[in-house]
Amino acid sequence: MQSTSVSSETNNRPFLTWQRIIDWAQEHYRCRSFNKDERIPARPGLLYLVQRGSVRLVGSAQLGTASNKSNSKVSRRALDEAFLGFVGAGQPFELVAQSPFSLQAYAHTDDTNVLWMYWEDLDNWPHFRREVLDAFRYQHQRKLLWLSTLGQRRTIDRLLGFLTLLIEEYGEYYVNDSEEHPFRGYCLPWPLTHSQIGSAIGSTRVTVTRLMGKLRSSGLIYTQGDNLICLPAEMDKEEPS
Amino acid sequence: MQSTSVSSETNNRPFLTWQRIIDWAQEHYRCRSFNKDERIPARPGLLYLVQRGSVRLVGSAQLGTASNKSNSKVSRRALDEAFLGFVGAGQPFELVAQSPFSLQAYAHTDDTNVLWMYWEDLDNWPHFRREVLDAFRYQHQRKLLWLSTLGQRRTIDRLLGFLTLLIEEYGEYYVNDSEEHPFRGYCLPWPLTHSQIGSAIGSTRVTVTRLMGKLRSSGLIYTQGDNLICLPAEMDKEEPS
Repeated sequence: MQSTSVSSETNNRPFLTWQRIIDWAQEHYRCRSFNKDERIPARPGLLYLVQRGSVRLVGSAQLGTASNKSNSKVSRRALDEAFLGFVGAGQPFELVAQSPFSLQAYAHTDDTNVLWMYWEDLDNWPHFRREVLDAFRYQHQRKLLWLSTLGQRRTIDRLLGFLTLLIEEYGEYYVNDSEEHPFRGYCLPWPLTHSQIGSAIGSTRVTVTRLMGKLRSSGLIYTQGDNLICLPAEMDKEEPS
Repeated sequence: MQSTSVSSETNNRPFLTWQRIIDWAQEHYRCRSFNKDERIPARPGLLYLVQRGSVRLVGSAQLGTASNKSNSKVSRRALDEAFLGFVGAGQPFELVAQSPFSLQAYAHTDDTNVLWMYWEDLDNWPHFRREVLDAFRYQHQRKLLWLSTLGQRRTIDRLLGFLTLLIEEYGEYYVNDSEEHPFRGYCLPWPLTHSQIGSAIGSTRVTVTRLMGKLRSSGLIYTQGDNLICLPAEMDKEEPS
């Protein structure tokens, strides 16, 4: 196992002891399948692993709770739910609720399979535990890059940076050889609504739709078939073998 | 060591083998002191630990690089640097540069002391390695909460959420018993400029200054002495012992 560097390969490399973990989870009734957009009832203190499909992390918040009641002009209210990213097959996740913020997980595709365990269960697999922790280390680095993007003032910069990061991490190679619309690049394998994108970058569905149109007509993004978002490959780079 | 839950206490708890690590770093010339705003020349593949002071993480990006050159209307250009958070004393950090995004670290206060090691060096301290990985796991959760905040459409919501998260993590208890301006709450121990705040929440210095005034006059935030930002303690909670 290579644990000294955090690379994008970590993402696609299944855990080595994966099959043993799956067997263990089935034996102990610690796995379940979810339909698209079904909430995964994840609790703090447990570790979750995506076996198949994709999980969508979402955050919500209540603000204004810390107000000095006597002279507050801002009352407690629920804020928008924010899209926080995907957890793909072979990746771990955990949710730690913290007032005034809380995190939730939803299946992003049909037939998403999730298994779970207590952190103590990992004491039996120290090697696997290390891989899980390295995966979190990698996810943390990705979130720092994501935060860099969300610090941009212009919404179109936040949008393009956000799509670039997602496709860099999850994109699948795609070629369209048609004469009319030739394309070579990487596509996000799951659809994402404009409303979900807006909730990630601090914008609205309407603005995202307008800016996506602008990026598309500039050739910076491309939309494939069933609303899958793609980025063109750089012309000076080789295609993957 | 308690490694089964991620709690805010992790943040303030020094690593158990801390003194041995410091001795080792000094012996091997793997530590250095930095002045305020001095760049810490951190390289990918190395692990850094903040011994004293505070480190500020910053992200920068170049966008538009993936454009289809022939019909692109957006050219490659540098974007704003974004404030990505602090790394306090006793906490680890690492920087993994990834085109088109890169991360940098700066000393946020004078006399910030940082030590570093290769990940392989940690093989000598498996217990410590586990604590470092758990610290990253905690930092990752915090960043997810931060992303929830930055997904808010209203800038004032992003601002208040951002300050709440920072003070929840780093705030120090503070009481002002003066009759004129009595205050009881938690203060960020380091100043943060309005420009830095703006770079974190996708806004400008001018807007941050205006909204900070609004939050202050609503009693939602409070500014102590040398421009330190504070949140009032909730009245129905006990003070810390």
